[in-house]
Amino acid sequence: MDSSKLSEFALIARLTHALPQGPGVVMGVGDDCTILDLGGEQLLLATCDSQVEGVHFLLQGAQTRPELIGCKALAVNLSDIAAMGGEPRFVLISLILPPHLETAVIEQLYEGLRQEAVRYGTSIVGGNIAGSGVGHQLVIDITLLGTVERGHVITRAGAKTGDVLCMTGTVGDAAAGLHTLLYPQLAYPEEACQAVRARCLTPQARVREGRLLGQLGPEVVTAMLDISDGLSGDVQHLCEQSGVGIAIALAQLPVSPALLAMARCVARDPLDWALHGGEDYELLFTVAPEHVARVRQMIQVQTGTPVTVIGMVCAAEEGRYVTYADGRREPLIARSWDHLAADADT
Amino acid sequence: MDSSKLSEFALIARLTHALPQGPGVVMGVGDDCTILDLGGEQLLLATCDSQVEGVHFLLQGAQTRPELIGCKALAVNLSDIAAMGGEPRFVLISLILPPHLETAVIEQLYEGLRQEAVRYGTSIVGGNIAGSGVGHQLVIDITLLGTVERGHVITRAGAKTGDVLCMTGTVGDAAAGLHTLLYPQLAYPEEACQAVRARCLTPQARVREGRLLGQLGPEVVTAMLDISDGLSGDVQHLCEQSGVGIAIALAQLPVSPALLAMARCVARDPLDWALHGGEDYELLFTVAPEHVARVRQMIQVQTGTPVTVIGMVCAAEEGRYVTYADGRREPLIARSWDHLAADADT
Repeated sequence: MDSSKLSEFALIARLTHALPQGPGVVMGVGDDCTILDLGGEQLLLATCDSQVEGVHFLLQGAQTRPELIGCKALAVNLSDIAAMGGEPRFVLISLILPPHLETAVIEQLYEGLRQEAVRYGTSIVGGNIAGSGVGHQLVIDITLLGTVERGHVITRAGAKTGDVLCMTGTVGDAAAGLHTLLYPQLAYPEEACQAVRARCLTPQARVREGRLLGQLGPEVVTAMLDISDGLSGDVQHLCEQSGVGIAIALAQLPVSPALLAMARCVARDPLDWALHGGEDYELLFTVAPEHVARVRQMIQVQTGTPVTVIGMVCAAEEGRYVTYADGRREPLIARSWDHLAADADT
Repeated sequence: MDSSKLSEFALIARLTHALPQGPGVVMGVGDDCTILDLGGEQLLLATCDSQVEGVHFLLQGAQTRPELIGCKALAVNLSDIAAMGGEPRFVLISLILPPHLETAVIEQLYEGLRQEAVRYGTSIVGGNIAGSGVGHQLVIDITLLGTVERGHVITRAGAKTGDVLCMTGTVGDAAAGLHTLLYPQLAYPEEACQAVRARCLTPQARVREGRLLGQLGPEVVTAMLDISDGLSGDVQHLCEQSGVGIAIALAQLPVSPALLAMARCVARDPLDWALHGGEDYELLFTVAPEHVARVRQMIQVQTGTPVTVIGMVCAAEEGRYVTYADGRREPLIARSWDHLAADADT
């Protein structure tokens, strides 16, 4: 069987089944980050994620710049640390360089990495540079280490029946932005196009929001992850790890005016992007019901980022479903992009 | 300028010049590992290194198996932790998979990684899987975290004039092994060929030796690194980081009978492989002169690995040179392979 016939999650499950775990491993494969205990006051978080030319970005073409590719390569890792309530600290950068790549391009890429690192107070501490063969593509593989106070790490596994499902920001924009990059010849409303494209090319990791949510502790914020695979896929991860079901109220999904304008333009249901688009890098989290009002207000006041209630946690037997304003409900089928054409955290 | 015109070290210097370093960074770019301080009893070590199909290994052909590629991908990182006196602890594995790669190949590769991790008591704790475009190559990028007791980390920077230069094992074998893989059509002495090829395909990281040397502390073992770039290049790193010169006594270089047999077979000076070949993954270290006999004996008794005195540390003004048995001396020119056709730790 060739690997493209196997879903990314099935492949990960086969590879990482029953890995022996030595002392210090609090949690290995299966969440946004690994959690390690080195005996100090804080736990260590570790994550890695790669960006591959031709899969995650294009070097050729006017729609992006190497700096932005560098920024995004780090941002997607920052988002994983944020999703555990952690503080991003140390970056290792592995570059696979095709021959004859202009040094100026590599320097611009690195400048983007450096700017993003500075923006979040993280240090680039090491890495590796390797050549690739002729005709091959640029790969940026980043390992990011973070720290989090003991008792303040939020995993995907703590959601309970009756908890309230919340998210930061808006959802679906990045997928609409990708659409404009894949079909640049179409005429889009200019302002909306720029807005969604920016969400795709320069995602902003919700590091400050994640830290604040983590500081509330897992009794308040019971589970968290980032929306990287698409809402429907990430809800599935949350349900599987927590052993719960989830109902999403479609009318409450926070969709931006730009997304609505783009959907009208291409005659597409905006909920399709909102439910199944990926790479928004918003935080999806569950809150014990008595704390919801306080949590929403705190995040909004301290960061300016809106928090929206989008659903409820229910029993695992009820499964995952969406509800319409008129009370109808339908199963929520995870329809994220296949990550072997893209990528997946293991 | 295209990047292949710039040496790997020049490129690294340009990219990593004056990187801002936040709290917790004891040492960033420039040694075998990054050293981080998270406040616990131990310091954290971090390193990453990638293996690229077509550059570091070939998937096609009978000379290697995916398990061995997996083993080696981890071994080269284990060697970096060993070279700081550290204990390897946690592995993150990033795979870039070409489409249509057989799942069985990926599983065998991962099995090699798993076996090597178990052999050294390290835990595979996370990673990432990404697809690459059609026609592109397999990349295995590994980040390895280790720990080391405060006061027992050995860097490249502590060698002093009068210290004695030592190394574990033998040098040059891996380069001779690579020669047999690059020119498989030549007739080699079978036993010697197998021996040097094994050094190239299945390098053994000197983890136990590195731990013992680290436990002696930097007052005894003043500097250490692994021989990955080739002895001449690694001596240059040591001299630059420590601000010293080094004299190597050619007659004392530990070359294996297999290397001598291979050199005779291809009419080549074995010292050429010994001085400038790479990937032996032996430890190169300097010892305060009064401790040399004790250090050699301890390593040999406790690990069975021979330790050879190969030279002396001298003042930086004397530079780097080799001495012949008759007293002649010649400058030692670093002639490691260019890492943009291969790779380099940043």
